[in-house]
Formats: sequence, C-alpha cells, structure tokens
Amino acid sequence: MNVNGQHYRAIWLSKENPQIVEIIDQRYLPHRFVIHPLKTVEDTAFAIKEMQVRGAPLIGATAAYGMYLAGLNARRNNIEDIDQMYAEVFDTLLATRPTAINLQWALERQKAAIATVDTLEEKIAVSLATAKNVCDEDVEICKNIGLHGLPLIEAISKKKKGETVNILTHCNAGWVATVDWGTATAPIYMAHEKGIKVHVWVDETRPRNQGARLTSWELNEHGVPNTVIVDNVGGHLMQHGMVDMCIVGTDRTTYTGDVANKIGTYLKALAAHDNGVPFYVALPSTTIDWKTADGFSIPIEQRRASEVTHIQGLLQNGKVEQVQLTPTASQAANYAFDVTPARLVTGLITERGICVASEAGIKGLFPEKGQSRT
Amino acid sequence: MNVNGQHYRAIWLSKENPQIVEIIDQRYLPHRFVIHPLKTVEDTAFAIKEMQVRGAPLIGATAAYGMYLAGLNARRNNIEDIDQMYAEVFDTLLATRPTAINLQWALERQKAAIATVDTLEEKIAVSLATAKNVCDEDVEICKNIGLHGLPLIEAISKKKKGETVNILTHCNAGWVATVDWGTATAPIYMAHEKGIKVHVWVDETRPRNQGARLTSWELNEHGVPNTVIVDNVGGHLMQHGMVDMCIVGTDRTTYTGDVANKIGTYLKALAAHDNGVPFYVALPSTTIDWKTADGFSIPIEQRRASEVTHIQGLLQNGKVEQVQLTPTASQAANYAFDVTPARLVTGLITERGICVASEAGIKGLFPEKGQSRT
Repeated sequence: MNVNGQHYRAIWLSKENPQIVEIIDQRYLPHRFVIHPLKTVEDTAFAIKEMQVRGAPLIGATAAYGMYLAGLNARRNNIEDIDQMYAEVFDTLLATRPTAINLQWALERQKAAIATVDTLEEKIAVSLATAKNVCDEDVEICKNIGLHGLPLIEAISKKKKGETVNILTHCNAGWVATVDWGTATAPIYMAHEKGIKVHVWVDETRPRNQGARLTSWELNEHGVPNTVIVDNVGGHLMQHGMVDMCIVGTDRTTYTGDVANKIGTYLKALAAHDNGVPFYVALPSTTIDWKTADGFSIPIEQRRASEVTHIQGLLQNGKVEQVQLTPTASQAANYAFDVTPARLVTGLITERGICVASEAGIKGLFPEKGQSRT
Repeated sequence: MNVNGQHYRAIWLSKENPQIVEIIDQRYLPHRFVIHPLKTVEDTAFAIKEMQVRGAPLIGATAAYGMYLAGLNARRNNIEDIDQMYAEVFDTLLATRPTAINLQWALERQKAAIATVDTLEEKIAVSLATAKNVCDEDVEICKNIGLHGLPLIEAISKKKKGETVNILTHCNAGWVATVDWGTATAPIYMAHEKGIKVHVWVDETRPRNQGARLTSWELNEHGVPNTVIVDNVGGHLMQHGMVDMCIVGTDRTTYTGDVANKIGTYLKALAAHDNGVPFYVALPSTTIDWKTADGFSIPIEQRRASEVTHIQGLLQNGKVEQVQLTPTASQAANYAFDVTPARLVTGLITERGICVASEAGIKGLFPEKGQSRT
C-alpha cells in the first residue's frame, strides 16, 4: 500500500544489488521510516527475532528469503556440505519465533524446492524463485481475503444506510504484517477504495504497540480514518454499539478453528460474543495448522520482561528513546499470544472464502487438506 | 501502609501548619516520591482533576479537605456571603471528576455538617473535624473490607495446600487510592501479614498505568510479591489456571450491583466468568449509588487523547519525561471507565461483609438504605 503517496511492499529484493533483500525496519515506525538491508542468515534471524519484521505472513516471506541468502553465503564462503548448511539454516530460522506457523510452512517449502535440484547454483536460483513466489502469492492471497471480506462490510454499510462502519482490530494484521494489503486490513482497504465509509478502532496492543505504531500509521498513510484506543476500551465500545464488527489476524489457527493471535485477542472475542458483535479472523490458509486440533497445545512465546517495563517513543526534542514505566524493583511477565476458542469466532475470512471456525467449515473450503493430518 | 519502611497515609493535615493539607503527588510515582501541599480550593480541584490524587475514596477525602480549605480562604479574604461561597466550592469540586460517587457523598456530608453551625469559625472547625472523620472512617472501612475478604484468600490457600494464591487486580484500588489499606488490596495485605503466600498479577492499566506505577509500587514497598502484566494478558492467565481469583475496586456501584470501574475491568470480568475464576469487587458502601439502577446510565468520563498518545517514564539519564507513542497524525479516544454488569460479579466485599452483586444482596447488608431511593 502507500507510504507518503508511494507504493511499497513490506519486503523486496534490492534493485541495486540482487544479493540483498530489503525490509522496512518496523522497530522504528511510526517515528522513522527506515529501509534495512538483509545480507546474511544472521541478519534474517535477527530481523525475525527482534521484530524488524513481524506478522505471520511476513515472517514466512522473510524466512524464505533467508534460505536464498544462505545459498549466497555458502557460495561466498565455499562451504562444502551444502545439505548440512541448509539443514542448519532451516533450524536456525525455525527457532526464531515459536508461534507463527507460516515460518515453518515457508521453510518447508524452500527445503522441498531446494531438494529438487543438485548444484549450489541451482539451489540458489530455485530458492530465489521460491522466495519471490511466496511473496507474490501472499499478495494474491491477501487480495482474495479482501475480496471475500468486502461483502461483510458492504452489508453493514447498507444496513446502516451508508453511515460509517466501525471496525475494531487488534495488533497489526495490516499490510506491513504481510507483503501487501494485509489480512485483517485487506477488506478494510478494499471497502475504503470502493468509497464505503469505514472507521477503524485501533487497539494500541501492548506491550509492543503494533496497533498504535503500525496499524494506525499504515491506515493514516493510506487515508483510512482510524482512532487509537488502549486495549482496555474495546469492551466498553461494544457495550455501547460503537463497534459494528471486529476483524483480527492470526499467527496460527488449528484445523478445528481455534485462533492463536496476539495477546488480548481472546478478551475482545469475549466482549464481541457478549454483545452480539461479529468477530472475524482473516487468514491465509498458510496460517492453518493442519496437525493441531486443540488450540491450547500451540506453544505460546514468552518474551523479555523489558518489553513490558520499558517503552519506546518520541521525545519532544525529536529523539526516539526508551522510558521505564514500572518501579525498578518490579517483575514483569510477557506472554505474546493467546488462544481464542473457535466458539467465539463468527467466521474465518480466507483466500477461498468465508467459513465457520470449525473442522467442517475449514474442510469445506480446503477439502484437499483433509488427508494430510496425522 | 509502608513506604521505604515508614508508615504513611495518602492524605493528612500538615504537622507544621494545620492550614495546609498534604498529599502524595501520585503523578510522579513510582519514579519520585513527592509530598505536595494543598492550600486552596483551586489546589484541591487541580489535585483531583489532574490526578495528583485518584481512587474513589481518596477523591472523597480530598474533596472533604477542600471544603475545609474553602473556609480558611473565606477567612483570609473576608468573604461575606459564606453560604454562596460554600455552594460555589461544592459545585467546583463536584465538577472535577464525573464518575466517582464518593466525591458527591463527601461533599454532601460536608455541606450538611457545615449547615449545622452558623459562624464561619464554627464552619471551619466542623469542616475540619468532618474531613478528619471521613479519613479515619475510610481507614476503618478498608480494614473491615480486608477482614471480610481475608477468608476468601485463606480458603483458596487451604484448598491449594499452602501453595501461592494468585490474585489478579486491575488499576489501583490500593492504599494510595484510599487513605490507608486500600479496598481491593486490603484482603491481600491482611493475607500477606498473616503469612499466607500470595502473589498479585498487576494489570498495568493503560492509559495511565495506575497498576504498573502505583499498585506494583505499593505492593513492592510493603513486601507483597507481584508481577506486572499488560492488560491483554489476564485472559490467557485465566485460561491456564494461573489466576485463583480477581479482586478489583469500583468508582461507583449501582444498588443493583452493576460495577463502574477503570476501563478494562469488564474484559477481565468476562474472562473470569468464561474460566470459572471468582471475580470480586471490594468497595466501601460510600461507593454505592443508591439512586441508580442501571449501570449503563452512569456517566463515563472521557479524558484527553494525549493520555493515550503520550506516556511518562524514566529516561536512562534519570529524568522523567513524556514520549509520544502514536503517529503524529493519529487520533485517539480515551474512555476512562466501563461498566461490568452484576451478572459477571461473584460477590461484593464491603465493610459489612460479602454479598451477591444484586439488589437483594446489597439490601441484605445495608437494610437501612432501602428507603432512601427515589
């Protein structure tokens, strides 16, 4: 989507040097727009782990490019045991984040692609093609999520006789969480471009404030009206009829419809359920875990306490600095995701259409996946 | 309770000059411990409005002292129409915060007390005595809330065979929200002093972070183990059996049991209900609104957007500064309270005992209030 009037993707191959992958360093948004080069597997692992890139689809795309960079590195360093190198890189990248399933999916896809050819040069070529395909397909998938989600917004708009449709979202499942369009935001961008009046309630999404920093920023840049709220507010808004629907993303959804997403999603789903507000989850099918039935068996990442005790922001003098929020003596715990049970989800918006969050619903859209489970 | 080993109340008459009231300026906690003098009604109104003091009981106590300071001011300035002056001060102080009912209760009490005597000197004397009584009674009330809540914690401790009892709280209903002991924290402090192992999950409570800044600070200072979490985490903890009970405070509770409290309380009550975790509200009966049946008719304060877009914290250089969290172009909305319907509340812990959050339950403990409703 657009940044300052210019179209960007969230990851791309450098035009000047095709041995370099470029990303928007999302740690500095919204106060600085920094384009950052990835030259090595270490750069890539750091980028995922330290959340220069984040969002399940973009993590997958970045890991896919990491496998390409690994090949370049092997060529530069004359590494002999290529198979072992790729296996190690696979493990390194897989270990960067535990919850997002796309990471594994993208790495498995690269592994399979690389195995189809013999020489290092061929492997480099095939891994570059695969990484590009992962990105292009992600754009197509997100577009289709947008097309399938759009009628939901149109229907509410009609029912409200053209009055503004208020949509609540949590965290950032926007275009900077994917390659372009976003998942939860794709229907919103499409509605906006079609001239439907939409307004987004943006949960700031503590502790890392992806909503306040990224979702609000990207909606601003693309011209979509939005209001930042603290994570505590959504329930109140829903009680007072100020939310017409919720759309969130997901880091992993079980084939039974349980949704692992950014911590706090479950609380909003409870409030939506309690107030009869539709609660949709937008996802590429790459985010579906075809092997896991119970959402509560998904590993939940625990991150550094300092993400809770400290926060980064813009000082009046224009510097971006961290401030400490808690007493120095205080402990903090930092669970990054929670699981919203399928019973609280109105529907899943996928690239193939909308389905009920249940095994039958998902199977209906993805019948070919029925056999793959163990 | 204790600060750095020394006992404090949250408000007191200056020992050096009885024409000055002293408070802990809570805007600077936890990074600085600042004692601030109130000399005028304007000081008092500012203190309440700008949240140098906050918490329903402490707001009431501060307003009561404000009426005393008003009399001193009238004496200094030879104001003639004393009745009009008191009426204006009543209105000024009542307008400082709209949601907490104690504010009105304390002002009405002062108004009635002042009306019982004729001369300004008598009015000053009676208003000072009333303000002191409001404070002393608040301490007694909170102690009794503690004594009635303690058996709930003891029972869980026994059931867990002495293992740590994990209690989640939201915002600050601690001793710095009252004169001493706190409401939600009173049972916790009593359990801790009795040697029962307790641990508190402290919701940071955006946007003003009263949990992270005040609750965690006061628990630390008094030696009660606690862990700060972002407001998004509580649901996840409850899903995983990591919360044995919730105790929160309230700014106003209807005589039917609907609970207005800091924004986000409703979301935690929903999560507690969904996971079978007991959800208690601790309150002095002064917080009960005997005239309002429907919680949703309680006015909900909207505060400055800058409380959401900016946050104060400690820089590495030791300075306390504000940083901007959101993009400069972003709008923010700031609803300060929400209403938790009585159906989600396990019980109300009052100074007279515990009751069901219902008209019958409340009437059972406060039968004399049955007639006062319009």
